[in-house]
Amino acid sequence: MLKFDEQKQIDSVAGALDLRGQIEEAVDTLCRTGCREAYYLGIGGTYASALQAEAHGREKSAFPVFAENAARYITSGNRRIGKGSAVVISSVTGTTPEMLEAVKRAKAAGALVLGFVDDAAAPLAGLVDFEIAYPGCEQLKFFMATDRFFWNNGDFPEYVEYHREMEQYLPRALAEAEKKADEFGKEFAQRHHADPIHYFVGAGSQYGAAYSYAMCYWEEQHWLRAKAVHAGEFFHGTLEIIDRDTPVTVFLGEDAERPLAERVANFLPRICGNFTLIDSRDYELAGIRPEYRGSLSHLVTHAVTQRIDAHIELLNRHPMEIRRYYRCLDY
Amino acid sequence: MLKFDEQKQIDSVAGALDLRGQIEEAVDTLCRTGCREAYYLGIGGTYASALQAEAHGREKSAFPVFAENAARYITSGNRRIGKGSAVVISSVTGTTPEMLEAVKRAKAAGALVLGFVDDAAAPLAGLVDFEIAYPGCEQLKFFMATDRFFWNNGDFPEYVEYHREMEQYLPRALAEAEKKADEFGKEFAQRHHADPIHYFVGAGSQYGAAYSYAMCYWEEQHWLRAKAVHAGEFFHGTLEIIDRDTPVTVFLGEDAERPLAERVANFLPRICGNFTLIDSRDYELAGIRPEYRGSLSHLVTHAVTQRIDAHIELLNRHPMEIRRYYRCLDY
Repeated sequence: MLKFDEQKQIDSVAGALDLRGQIEEAVDTLCRTGCREAYYLGIGGTYASALQAEAHGREKSAFPVFAENAARYITSGNRRIGKGSAVVISSVTGTTPEMLEAVKRAKAAGALVLGFVDDAAAPLAGLVDFEIAYPGCEQLKFFMATDRFFWNNGDFPEYVEYHREMEQYLPRALAEAEKKADEFGKEFAQRHHADPIHYFVGAGSQYGAAYSYAMCYWEEQHWLRAKAVHAGEFFHGTLEIIDRDTPVTVFLGEDAERPLAERVANFLPRICGNFTLIDSRDYELAGIRPEYRGSLSHLVTHAVTQRIDAHIELLNRHPMEIRRYYRCLDY
Repeated sequence: MLKFDEQKQIDSVAGALDLRGQIEEAVDTLCRTGCREAYYLGIGGTYASALQAEAHGREKSAFPVFAENAARYITSGNRRIGKGSAVVISSVTGTTPEMLEAVKRAKAAGALVLGFVDDAAAPLAGLVDFEIAYPGCEQLKFFMATDRFFWNNGDFPEYVEYHREMEQYLPRALAEAEKKADEFGKEFAQRHHADPIHYFVGAGSQYGAAYSYAMCYWEEQHWLRAKAVHAGEFFHGTLEIIDRDTPVTVFLGEDAERPLAERVANFLPRICGNFTLIDSRDYELAGIRPEYRGSLSHLVTHAVTQRIDAHIELLNRHPMEIRRYYRCLDY
């Protein structure tokens, strides 16, 4: 399999799950010191992950979780962020200018910041109140933090059991999902690697998945045009430009907003002959009980899209790490 | 001028501004009965308007204003909506199924609902606690309500003066903007009426404008492909697929997020030879003082895009009221 080191991937997920003690200590301290709400602050890909954390919170807890965009925060502000706010961030490089400025502003307003900054020596890491440095698995780390907020709020009674099950089964289950998806990923890549535009539709945590996949993968890394559409909004505009040949992919997860994506999936065959469904239900996740799958399905569809990416990269002879403009030109 | 009845438009805006007494009475009652936050609940175009109300609130007030999507609310829910929440909606037909279900749910949770349902006999109008029936001017009605919430919260001291100035000058100022924009609209339509895809970029209240224009106008009414991108997100993915010939339009308003749009506008000439700036600053708004323009600039750019629409409709011989699928097929 292209770009797939099974043991490395298993270790990566297991290592992220091993951060539980550190995450619990940080979140418990935040809650003890009076944080009444959490702002997942991001930009681009990290904003997409923040949208997923927010979607998770809508369903699971009365503890308020908000996605906050760093570029917006440093311009229009948000007067609710201050004392009593926990801000949660993630950054690979720890140097993104909007993030640096946003974290400074949130701290000046009195918020406390939990940072998943992969490089502990980066400027951003030095600004946060609680720093947890571990590469990758951003979506998982974000949900581990939300889950602890929810547990502290009395809303996630299955927390301990759920995390024990994740630790035991998730690393292997995701690797198995990726292996199972490889053939599909190859076929999908062959069919779509030169699409003029591709529509990705999702709801719940799958909207963040669609948003990230369209913008951070297709646009940024493959230089292919793509648009993410929330499944709930699909019928209020976008559907009118879908015809027989329009490439549309629906991500189906297993959280509370699944019916919105199903509605699109059920409708598409009547008007489109070029659609694909990526459904987390098609992947086993051995050992994990059905009622926990909704909180994990964004990790499953991400495992699937990684297989598509590996094949598109090869077919298009376009290395995913190159950028035409980003960090090459000032803005 | 195509599709433009000057007196009718002036009367339409003036009539909306005349709703001030009714809006104040409704909002004051909501605040008196303990509403501590407002949820602008919408779907499609009304969700875009809700995004604008939220953007307005970020800048202007500590009173929390949230955009809430009706399709999401009826699936993943929102536990914060309940007693103490004001829900504000707008609807032309008053029959959209997601909105009906969402309003029922919000009311069952204890929220009070202010409805701008144009047809007072529609099912939705019968569900709300405060009904104000007046056709059109949704964005203006939404902001009139937010402004009163802000004033009641002590955050908008210029409220009375601002509204007096709007009542005196805005109807004519917007009509003048539309007349001034007609030639531009015609040229823009000639250049872009057959674009394979068009990118609309905006920030602040102009993001809602871009979202609505791409989805509710280009996709839904012109059957043309378009994508809205928040100016703050533009540099984190989308920029990589912009090249010499990519059609990009940046909406520039005059609120706090303007610098994010300016950053895109300043960057584009280096990589793109097919971009357009639509800047509310280019329109005079005679009689309205500079510091009030930020709250009105989404109405200005809307006046401009209406001129584009009139010309695209003619060039494409595509009447804007027809739908391929919406309300023709069940979903």
